[in-house]
Amino acid sequence: MSDASTNRLEQLLGRFAAGDRLALARLITLVENRHPSVARVMERLYNPAAQAHVVGVTGPPGAGKSTLIDRLVNRLRARKQQVAVLAIDPSSPFSGGAVLGDRVRMGDHYADPGVYIRSLSTRGSHGGLSRAARQIVILLEAFKFDVIIVETAGVGQTELDIMDLAHTTVVVTVPEGGDGIQIMKAGLNEIADIFVVNKADRDGADRVKAELELNVHLRADNGWRPPVLLTQAANDRGVEALVAQLDKHREYLREHTDPQAQRQHRAHEFIEILTGQIEERTRNAMSNGRAHEIMESVSAGKLNPYAAARMLLDDPSALGALLSKSGGDC
Amino acid sequence: MSDASTNRLEQLLGRFAAGDRLALARLITLVENRHPSVARVMERLYNPAAQAHVVGVTGPPGAGKSTLIDRLVNRLRARKQQVAVLAIDPSSPFSGGAVLGDRVRMGDHYADPGVYIRSLSTRGSHGGLSRAARQIVILLEAFKFDVIIVETAGVGQTELDIMDLAHTTVVVTVPEGGDGIQIMKAGLNEIADIFVVNKADRDGADRVKAELELNVHLRADNGWRPPVLLTQAANDRGVEALVAQLDKHREYLREHTDPQAQRQHRAHEFIEILTGQIEERTRNAMSNGRAHEIMESVSAGKLNPYAAARMLLDDPSALGALLSKSGGDC
Repeated sequence: MSDASTNRLEQLLGRFAAGDRLALARLITLVENRHPSVARVMERLYNPAAQAHVVGVTGPPGAGKSTLIDRLVNRLRARKQQVAVLAIDPSSPFSGGAVLGDRVRMGDHYADPGVYIRSLSTRGSHGGLSRAARQIVILLEAFKFDVIIVETAGVGQTELDIMDLAHTTVVVTVPEGGDGIQIMKAGLNEIADIFVVNKADRDGADRVKAELELNVHLRADNGWRPPVLLTQAANDRGVEALVAQLDKHREYLREHTDPQAQRQHRAHEFIEILTGQIEERTRNAMSNGRAHEIMESVSAGKLNPYAAARMLLDDPSALGALLSKSGGDC
Repeated sequence: MSDASTNRLEQLLGRFAAGDRLALARLITLVENRHPSVARVMERLYNPAAQAHVVGVTGPPGAGKSTLIDRLVNRLRARKQQVAVLAIDPSSPFSGGAVLGDRVRMGDHYADPGVYIRSLSTRGSHGGLSRAARQIVILLEAFKFDVIIVETAGVGQTELDIMDLAHTTVVVTVPEGGDGIQIMKAGLNEIADIFVVNKADRDGADRVKAELELNVHLRADNGWRPPVLLTQAANDRGVEALVAQLDKHREYLREHTDPQAQRQHRAHEFIEILTGQIEERTRNAMSNGRAHEIMESVSAGKLNPYAAARMLLDDPSALGALLSKSGGDC
């Protein structure tokens, strides 16, 4: 990396540390673009003692997650907390992903300096989505938000993986026929710390609540028993109880640290980071002309890609050359 | 790897080559368990000239994908083709994932030696799901199935990635309100080679068909214009037309090979394979005690994981030691 680009990065980090939102936005864009300097930025900003409460909100499309988050943000702002919302749901109004006229409900918050809203596009990310989400959460933690809300559509494996980032995961559903069962099918019940049955003025809310409570009851008791809350986000009902449960779960986590689970979490995170960086470096090497010969043979269909991978991996010097760090302007 | 386990693997591959289904099932299980011998198996069985037609079938839950696949298998069997079905949808009856009483419709095919049905669990796969799907498709190709049908729920990023494996992607939807729009929101329209509006006896089928056709019309013309078919899989209607379009798309692909796109596809595949193997080796190294010191420091919270990753990656000898091949029995 050249001195000039190092200086630019240092300036950017300086502005970020001073609370400049444009610097935050710029760093998030570097993450989205998989810029080579991201690893360095993460090394600088990663803080294992970050104080933010990371809250995941997930559930099927149409459950009213965005409206619920809107109301939740209102409550958190009323007690002067700084809130960030990271939307990874392509159908979320936060994502601007409204194909045909979804109302953007969060309009009020965009003008509030205590709220930061950002969406992360899922298109073409090819496996990099949960890595990008992890990195953006690190940026938002370093920016000292009190609460970071991560919204996913809760419908696929990547979306489930992303919920691993959250300290507290809220699974939102609606009273419609079979919705409790859909939640269980999708594996969402296994990750829920709090269930919310939204649009609870509709028929069937009590039945879905009972189904979910039965499911909680049948689970092994690990100390925290996920509550099932009824809300009507559109009418701003039940949101206070959600805030209370979020606080309670956070308190629970503080009082019940499991050193073994923490160790495992850190080990898992490290492997994700290490392999992610290897992948990024490999991609750069391939496009930058190193490892060019092997890549050419594979691309031309002359070399079995599995044989090529073994050749590279069994030759530490070739691998070292492949992965030696390349620069990159930002 | 010990001589004994090498012999066992060779025996297994020999039985596989002789058409033994139990050997196929055993190799798929090795993939699911991320067994260390998988890379070697792939290197042996990978065949760039494989003749199978890989057909992806995706779409929202409840669109009737499984029934459609059942009927499709009937037609393919009627012309004596060997068919494999790989179900990666946790709510699919093929997956045995029916939480509360989904009918398993494929019962007849389980008794047919010309059909092989396998589901791939999505639980706890943490990013390894599309890799496992790719490897299983290689096994099924090597087993010389004529048609390999891969079913996903079509709702998340991982599920979209898996559809990259297919030569021909069929996106299934239903006439229900806004379903065409949901398809577009989920990005499914961008990967479709063929659209199917199933349950077409319901109201709104023609409207959804018109929406999808408009969408196709607005897309850049790349030579293949995805047809929009109406089916009633439960009544076995419209399936013949689907078979005809599958054949037509396959013919189209044969006649319109794009050398540049092929090169890019191989390069992309190679990076996926290489980084996947690096990830597997790293995981093994961490659990086997090599790289133990760094891992301990990270797990104990004493070392920034981003700094640890950089230390390893900037030291080729450490990296070589980390990634040197470990054995493993099968």
